[in-house]
Amino acid sequence: MNYQHIFTQAIERLHGEGRYRVFIDILRNKGAFPNARCFAHHNGPKPITVWCSNDYLAMGQHPSVIAAMEEALHDVGAGSGGTRNIGGNTHYHVDLEAELADLHGKEGALLFTSGYVSNEATLGTLGKILPGCIIFSDELNHASMIAGIRNSGCEKRVFRHNDLAHLRELLAAADPDAPKLIAFESVYSMDGDIAPIAAICDIADEYNALTYCDEVHAVGMYGPRGGGITERDEVAHRVTILEGTLGKAFGVMGGYIAADQVIIDVIRSYAPGFIFTTSLSPVLVAGVLAAVRHLKGSQIERDQQQAAAAFLKAEMAANGLPVMPSVTHIVPLMVGDPVKAKRISDILLAEYGIYVQPINFPTVPRGTERLRFTPGPSHSEEMMRELVVALVEIWDRLELEFREAA
Amino acid sequence: MNYQHIFTQAIERLHGEGRYRVFIDILRNKGAFPNARCFAHHNGPKPITVWCSNDYLAMGQHPSVIAAMEEALHDVGAGSGGTRNIGGNTHYHVDLEAELADLHGKEGALLFTSGYVSNEATLGTLGKILPGCIIFSDELNHASMIAGIRNSGCEKRVFRHNDLAHLRELLAAADPDAPKLIAFESVYSMDGDIAPIAAICDIADEYNALTYCDEVHAVGMYGPRGGGITERDEVAHRVTILEGTLGKAFGVMGGYIAADQVIIDVIRSYAPGFIFTTSLSPVLVAGVLAAVRHLKGSQIERDQQQAAAAFLKAEMAANGLPVMPSVTHIVPLMVGDPVKAKRISDILLAEYGIYVQPINFPTVPRGTERLRFTPGPSHSEEMMRELVVALVEIWDRLELEFREAA
Ligand SMILES: Cc1ncc(COP(=O)(O)O)c(C=O)c1O
Ligand SMILES: Cc1ncc(COP(=O)(O)O)c(C=O)c1O
Repeated sequence: MNYQHIFTQAIERLHGEGRYRVFIDILRNKGAFPNARCFAHHNGPKPITVWCSNDYLAMGQHPSVIAAMEEALHDVGAGSGGTRNIGGNTHYHVDLEAELADLHGKEGALLFTSGYVSNEATLGTLGKILPGCIIFSDELNHASMIAGIRNSGCEKRVFRHNDLAHLRELLAAADPDAPKLIAFESVYSMDGDIAPIAAICDIADEYNALTYCDEVHAVGMYGPRGGGITERDEVAHRVTILEGTLGKAFGVMGGYIAADQVIIDVIRSYAPGFIFTTSLSPVLVAGVLAAVRHLKGSQIERDQQQAAAAFLKAEMAANGLPVMPSVTHIVPLMVGDPVKAKRISDILLAEYGIYVQPINFPTVPRGTERLRFTPGPSHSEEMMRELVVALVEIWDRLELEFREAA
Repeated sequence: MNYQHIFTQAIERLHGEGRYRVFIDILRNKGAFPNARCFAHHNGPKPITVWCSNDYLAMGQHPSVIAAMEEALHDVGAGSGGTRNIGGNTHYHVDLEAELADLHGKEGALLFTSGYVSNEATLGTLGKILPGCIIFSDELNHASMIAGIRNSGCEKRVFRHNDLAHLRELLAAADPDAPKLIAFESVYSMDGDIAPIAAICDIADEYNALTYCDEVHAVGMYGPRGGGITERDEVAHRVTILEGTLGKAFGVMGGYIAADQVIIDVIRSYAPGFIFTTSLSPVLVAGVLAAVRHLKGSQIERDQQQAAAAFLKAEMAANGLPVMPSVTHIVPLMVGDPVKAKRISDILLAEYGIYVQPINFPTVPRGTERLRFTPGPSHSEEMMRELVVALVEIWDRLELEFREAA
């Protein structure tokens, strides 16, 4: 048994497919987002513009968030010092759970150390609490939902992406007496499309299924108070469990679910991924509290983000770049090849100081490798024009295909 | 299918067994640890003394940690804004991984959002990279290791706690050509005993097995630089993968592994729990950097912690309290019943302002429910004497059994 050989081969496979990942080493400049410093190639910090951050609304730099974190840091210290049950349940955690329950109009909410863990722990535990449960899962669901569903031990039936007819077909074919759960996202982060949530809930009612909606790429950004697509579409009360992150539009780190109190209590009491881990640092929780409260009352960040995304999509289309048909703040540019996607990204960083990460398998299906831009309130129209000029130059240089300009 | 009924029953089961968990709502007072405020029963903040924190060395309150976090907060902002691969790889992360690799004398290290995730993701992924791998797991391993081993899909063989003969027996019975991994902890956190690491490594050599050691309750606290029991026992180079947390002795939040570069690269490249999640906030990472660097050079916190634990164990034994035979900084007091353990804890909090959480199933096996004290550099001898007086009074009042005083 030559372990070294097996490990080396696993890495060689990635190089062979052109999808070995190199992390770009950066520091953002607080107050000057999307500007940052890049440490790549060890020739010292170099200024760059970040186009692939999921700090979508730049709340990670917002003065009220920074101030809240600084205050908590000086009031209670760095970490929580324990699990939620053993010494790590601070008053900040209690307050934030109430704030998030209110945001979604649910009885309760529960914090996790990340959105990933919230999906994995909740779906994994639900499946165990409901013996014989069948989980119906959208084929583009995030890796964390897939992990949770697998760990639940439940039978899984995958429906084609946002395909209601297929979902209904699978439900109709299932044992009518079995517990059922439909798991999906609201905004799909790599394509930028949106699930037909009301219609999914109609079908769930028909077949007496529970619903689980990942709003990670929507909370803070949609709905009049930032409650996500379920708030915008007024369907939050129809979804059994809503899940979100505190690390994207809310700008900090962590994850949560919101649901009826009894469900919150079950997950709180049974999910190993919730129980057996040091709770979120109160410093982070204080920052999120400020971000959620701010975005409940402020629409301007959401409006600016939508305007920036619309502008960038229009500029790309007008210049014949193959921008994908996203209906959200996400601007994906199709490349279709992992080596080319990385090459474009490398040139942008080295020659233009533009940082956008190539998105390769397993984050997206093979053959759909892309660049994914997330313009926000801090990306100016001038920056976006410069970006498009750079892309057009590179498209020319690498002899990539243009579309007919829109 | 009545979902509500199933969920309600799941909660009723916990009440029935006396192990429904009520979280005590607290805020620590920075600079005055172990003092804190308790919000229980909603009658306003009340001063308490915390005896069950895993911020073992009070590093979460250390001026250099607080200063580093404040600086990072103002330099780069609240969150990382992305996964390690997509925008979330900050220079702090790169620096901390180098610092942790150095701490353990390993080629590389890899950060995770928590110790839980580091165990789950690493063990889960290793098992998939090594087809047919058999994992030999100590029966008292932490829930996060158990979750990782289960998710790996590998065959698992459980050996009796720290029982070398049993481990050898299981290895001898296994297919000699199958990949093998022995997973164990250095300090077992609920009993306070220590694994015979050198002997486990000898056996691993004999059977060509990899070794995985969870040092969550040892890093920062043992070894001349805080490298854990493997540093103290000079066996770090013999253990294939070391795992630790940033949320206990280092006082903040997060987790990591340290190992050969090729193993780090495999986990970095293949583990969903590492790849698909927002990276640790740079504010936290900056704080941990300060804590690790401080504890590499400072022995006083470790000495004070050991002195406090020795004092408290001696006081308890001298007063006939059933303190368990821990050889570490952990001071477990056996109760053996979940309802009584909770009752003692409730009285301590309500009448004495002493906060120690009861430890019930599933954290410890049924019938071994206990109170677990973690005295540290900030717990004075006077505080410890008062604690023991309170315990003796309660032991009398509840007619619990005393041991012959030691
Ligand atoms: C759809 C979706 N769900 C969950 C997550 C995980 O959230 P977090 O980054 O907070 O772990 C992500 C991305 O990170 C995501 O894209
Ligand atoms: C032995 C052990 N491993 C891992 C963990 C998880 O570490 P973290 O709290 O950083 O998630 C814990 C406790 O929380 C633990 O006791």
